[in-house]
Amino acid sequence: MGLESFFNPRSVAIVGASRQEGKVGYEILANMIAAGYKGQIFPVNPKAEEIEGLKCYASLESIPDAPELVLIVVPAKMVPAVMQECAKVGSKAVVIITAGFKEVGEEGRALERQVIQAARQAGIRVIGPNCLGLIVPANHLNASFGGDLPASGGIAYLSQSGALLAAILDTANANGIGFSKLVSIGNKADVDEQDVMEAVADDAQTKVIAGYLESITDGNAFVREAERISHIKPILLMKSGGTQAGAEAASSHTGSLAGSEVAYESAFERAGIIRCDSIKQQFDYAQAFANQPLPAGSRVAVITNAGGPGIMAADAIEREGLTFAKLDEGTVKKLAEKLPAAANLHNPIDVLGDALADRYEFALDVVMDDSGVDAVLVLLTPQAMTEAAATAEAIVKVAGQRPGKPVLSCFLGAAKVRDGVGILRKGGIPQYDSPESAIDTIDAMTRYVQWRSRPKRVVRLFPVNRRRVENIVERHLRHGILDIGEAESKDILEAYGFVTPKGSIATTADQAANIAQQLGYPVVLKIWSPDILHKSDVGGVKVGLTSEQEVRDAFDLMIYRIPKKKPDAHILGVLVQEMCRKGKEVILGMHRDPHFGPLMMFGMGGIMVEVLKDVAFYLAPLTAQEAKQMLVSTKTYKILQGVRGDEGVDIERIAEGLQRLSQLVTEFPQIKEMDINPYVVGSPGTTPIAVDARISLEQ
Amino acid sequence: MGLESFFNPRSVAIVGASRQEGKVGYEILANMIAAGYKGQIFPVNPKAEEIEGLKCYASLESIPDAPELVLIVVPAKMVPAVMQECAKVGSKAVVIITAGFKEVGEEGRALERQVIQAARQAGIRVIGPNCLGLIVPANHLNASFGGDLPASGGIAYLSQSGALLAAILDTANANGIGFSKLVSIGNKADVDEQDVMEAVADDAQTKVIAGYLESITDGNAFVREAERISHIKPILLMKSGGTQAGAEAASSHTGSLAGSEVAYESAFERAGIIRCDSIKQQFDYAQAFANQPLPAGSRVAVITNAGGPGIMAADAIEREGLTFAKLDEGTVKKLAEKLPAAANLHNPIDVLGDALADRYEFALDVVMDDSGVDAVLVLLTPQAMTEAAATAEAIVKVAGQRPGKPVLSCFLGAAKVRDGVGILRKGGIPQYDSPESAIDTIDAMTRYVQWRSRPKRVVRLFPVNRRRVENIVERHLRHGILDIGEAESKDILEAYGFVTPKGSIATTADQAANIAQQLGYPVVLKIWSPDILHKSDVGGVKVGLTSEQEVRDAFDLMIYRIPKKKPDAHILGVLVQEMCRKGKEVILGMHRDPHFGPLMMFGMGGIMVEVLKDVAFYLAPLTAQEAKQMLVSTKTYKILQGVRGDEGVDIERIAEGLQRLSQLVTEFPQIKEMDINPYVVGSPGTTPIAVDARISLEQ
Repeated sequence: MGLESFFNPRSVAIVGASRQEGKVGYEILANMIAAGYKGQIFPVNPKAEEIEGLKCYASLESIPDAPELVLIVVPAKMVPAVMQECAKVGSKAVVIITAGFKEVGEEGRALERQVIQAARQAGIRVIGPNCLGLIVPANHLNASFGGDLPASGGIAYLSQSGALLAAILDTANANGIGFSKLVSIGNKADVDEQDVMEAVADDAQTKVIAGYLESITDGNAFVREAERISHIKPILLMKSGGTQAGAEAASSHTGSLAGSEVAYESAFERAGIIRCDSIKQQFDYAQAFANQPLPAGSRVAVITNAGGPGIMAADAIEREGLTFAKLDEGTVKKLAEKLPAAANLHNPIDVLGDALADRYEFALDVVMDDSGVDAVLVLLTPQAMTEAAATAEAIVKVAGQRPGKPVLSCFLGAAKVRDGVGILRKGGIPQYDSPESAIDTIDAMTRYVQWRSRPKRVVRLFPVNRRRVENIVERHLRHGILDIGEAESKDILEAYGFVTPKGSIATTADQAANIAQQLGYPVVLKIWSPDILHKSDVGGVKVGLTSEQEVRDAFDLMIYRIPKKKPDAHILGVLVQEMCRKGKEVILGMHRDPHFGPLMMFGMGGIMVEVLKDVAFYLAPLTAQEAKQMLVSTKTYKILQGVRGDEGVDIERIAEGLQRLSQLVTEFPQIKEMDINPYVVGSPGTTPIAVDARISLEQ
Repeated sequence: MGLESFFNPRSVAIVGASRQEGKVGYEILANMIAAGYKGQIFPVNPKAEEIEGLKCYASLESIPDAPELVLIVVPAKMVPAVMQECAKVGSKAVVIITAGFKEVGEEGRALERQVIQAARQAGIRVIGPNCLGLIVPANHLNASFGGDLPASGGIAYLSQSGALLAAILDTANANGIGFSKLVSIGNKADVDEQDVMEAVADDAQTKVIAGYLESITDGNAFVREAERISHIKPILLMKSGGTQAGAEAASSHTGSLAGSEVAYESAFERAGIIRCDSIKQQFDYAQAFANQPLPAGSRVAVITNAGGPGIMAADAIEREGLTFAKLDEGTVKKLAEKLPAAANLHNPIDVLGDALADRYEFALDVVMDDSGVDAVLVLLTPQAMTEAAATAEAIVKVAGQRPGKPVLSCFLGAAKVRDGVGILRKGGIPQYDSPESAIDTIDAMTRYVQWRSRPKRVVRLFPVNRRRVENIVERHLRHGILDIGEAESKDILEAYGFVTPKGSIATTADQAANIAQQLGYPVVLKIWSPDILHKSDVGGVKVGLTSEQEVRDAFDLMIYRIPKKKPDAHILGVLVQEMCRKGKEVILGMHRDPHFGPLMMFGMGGIMVEVLKDVAFYLAPLTAQEAKQMLVSTKTYKILQGVRGDEGVDIERIAEGLQRLSQLVTEFPQIKEMDINPYVVGSPGTTPIAVDARISLEQ
């Protein structure tokens, strides 16, 4: 069932309606009436005959016709009984405004569970509890105590914080920003962010989905669904509680576990979600997405009546990585025809301080026709002769004539540009308080366009020996062993197509020399003991041995010295292993995020990871393109490509390694964490070697 | 002469006053009158008897008493004549509003030069030309056509863009932001940013200096003066034209050469200037600096009536690197006494959605007393029972009682908090439109406090052989040779206390073997020719030679092969040099910035610089602390300190090298660019070797 009964109900009952101003039960009723709701409103309150001229009912059952939507504002303890009533009369959509549930602790959590269980049994969908309600301006539905009905517009907003929604509503109303839907999801005991997003995804009025979240209910499903929706319309999210301090505040507030920042970043990137750092930024973006077409590219032209702000815009364009549009010669010529001699005919086009509306109109008209311009920002400062309102009208007109290219505006000032700003807002031209925020918005639009034009995701499936891994994993879990040892880790890697170094365990120096002989020199010796995790720390690794004598010496020294350093260690022997060809050491890893599942990691080995923390993350399963992108996004990528005459390494093979690892951890959710370190890669065409690996499981 | 006659004149003449509304000559006169200026106003216009009820004069000379301040709005061509008149009557302060000078090209530039020369001869100071004028609210002086007289307050503002100043004025007036002075410096033909900053530095009303600049007239003097002033009061600057696109726009606009971004960053850092990215950010900062005390530390407490914004603030605190204050146990206990059970008593303190003003007052009062809190941010969302105005009054009251600790506020919303916001503004509590911008402001305040508490700068002077360098430099310049060769570069380095590798030039294999014998093996051979810059490219470098035979072979191969590759090169021999001890290679460098002088550079050698661009810059002369800070600020600093059991290198000696180099380039302004690459540093206690150096001169 969708949320249609919430958004467009025939009738609404308010259980707990009150006559007392200031009480939530009164405010909601008053808001419903003030908004001009066209359906029937049924106040429910056994102690009142009528409220605000509406007949009041003693209970839901006493209403002649079952209300399609029920708003509950009675105290928490009484909510279960009301839910029973809803089930009885057959209402299928309920908003529980009342607080005092999960957010106050164990008792509230139990109450919430009870209420939702009852709702589910009766096939009732519930928004809340602990929420502000919902608003649908086009239907004159203000089923909330958040504030006045806002204008109707293209933004759908969902918020996990009711108070924030109230603030947003107040700000939006002051600025004439319009919405398609506003939903306060509160504790999201039933209807959650994903339900709301799905519901507005196909809503023709909704041009952009925006929201504030502190947690995400089901990470995996959310990513899948958001990715689907992002192809239809942009999603702008504020997600707080990402940092440590924020997460602590979040969990004390909503009792929900905040996911790790990196996983959220990856999830949002995968899903095409545009993350916003502040409400201001979110509305900066939303204005443009709701009212303007998407830019075809990143080339921005600026029209201004003052040099200073023009320079500020140019600086911002470069900082954001956009392109400062180079105007076509024809454009410059056309501009020269009518602009004064002192005007700057190149980007940023300076129409000069004495420009009236007609000069702006002319310049915008000419620049919009330049095929080398993908978006236009019109700047205006209020000077002696400036016609803010007429200029705004001209912009609305010209932009309306060319609906394929976005136009944004930044009228600086306040009183002197107020009328102009009003005209721009009404005319669908997004208006910004600084050149920087306008340019930041154009950047968000181009990033979204780039995301949308990415090729379809195809995850390659490699032929692997899944059975072999199943056996190892299951045997470990059966015995409660969660760390897989070196030998079996390598079995697992080989089963998924990784090549590991050859070698065998020697228990005597003679054996060691023999194995070395067979492998061919040089070889590596490693102490073999389940009790020694950090082999090098005890002198348990010796590399680059090139002769029988060196092998014998190294063997004997390990066997003699290590038991003295680690008397309790059970030593099984010494591994004699082929020495890897020279190559670069990288790390491939995976950490299973509690919300979003396997998070893949790539980094250069050694100091690059340790000192520079130069690593890239992405959610599994990886496509070839995404695996490659992980490499490219590290600062040290150039080192892999080869610098200073170094020929570089086989980048495709690293990407393949990441994809194989991604397949492994996707097929085996029992693997909690693992890394291949080092993964030694040589020059193009050679086979990388997975030298060492650590795998840990969870039940 | 200071600028007192500009800021507080007894009388003002307006040359070019007009009766025609909309004309600048009218607007200025009208603004002067509307502002309630207490001195005499003399309109000057030969064609009018009186304007706006004031007697009009035919010329400056016909005014009975010489006006202290003269505003010129006549066309550019007439300005020289007016300046002559000023000289004659003895006015010493002139504002040229008129445009059409340097900014329009060569002719205008000549006119400007002529006017300023005349002024200088007569001892007249000039603001402008091509400016908006100036405003001093406390003296009811609005000698501008920028807009209405703003409120009096603690912000001094100077702007190189008149249009921007007009926009700022309009915005400030709408928000009740007060100023001590506003100065539009225009083309700054005489009075420039530095003059204005000096003038307001000791002005008791000015609490913070803010400005918008596109260029800086005299970089070195500016840095020195700004550094002095920053110790007295904060300087907040927007500097545009930093990026490439911005710089192009800047030079087409003002004809001034924009300095390189890195040099500006270093200069601002040295001078304690707080750089702002947008006007909004600048006013966010200015509000707080003008009205609130500086925080003693970085521990921030947050009081809120809603969880969401509290989390957003907590996230921002962590992102900015501030400290999320941990409340004292006593504080928590005290809070528990009066706050409801469901309130969060820990940071962020949640006084809950139904909090009235008294609850905010109580919480703020308690938190302000916590010695573990350095700054408090009060958040408010407009909920059903919220008392925005009364809460604002409570905040103003409590903050006023404890003037030693900054309090900032963020009342979210618009209409519902409007009265509250007005009360906060009047009461000197900075008010922000998002938690993020409030926290960003606290961060700017703490950064300023940290800068101010830095120890006094003491530049160490090393005993050097300055004479020796003088000889080399002067001889080169005399002969017009701008690149100093390897041998003499090393002489210069040695004169400044650097150790360079030992070695001599050999012209025969026998000689080479002999020199190697004396130096001791291993040695390096390098081809010696003024015509070969990149020795390795032609096989002209051979390292790690360990025997006489290897030296002879290498010598003969170079002498045989290189002339074939470079037939025109004049080969003087082969340098036989001692091989450097193992160590890490770093680069010490200097680039002389046209505005700010020698800009020192430090970076790790090899791929760290090439791939990661991991370098640090700072303006010379360097103190020991600054040199060390350059090292610390690189990402690869940890590598110098030693990782993974590596003992690291002698960091103090690298810092010393930077200081010596700083002294050299400071004492020899003829050195345009130089770098020591590689500078090989070994473990602590060893002497670094300046292996190679490149020095280029300018006349």
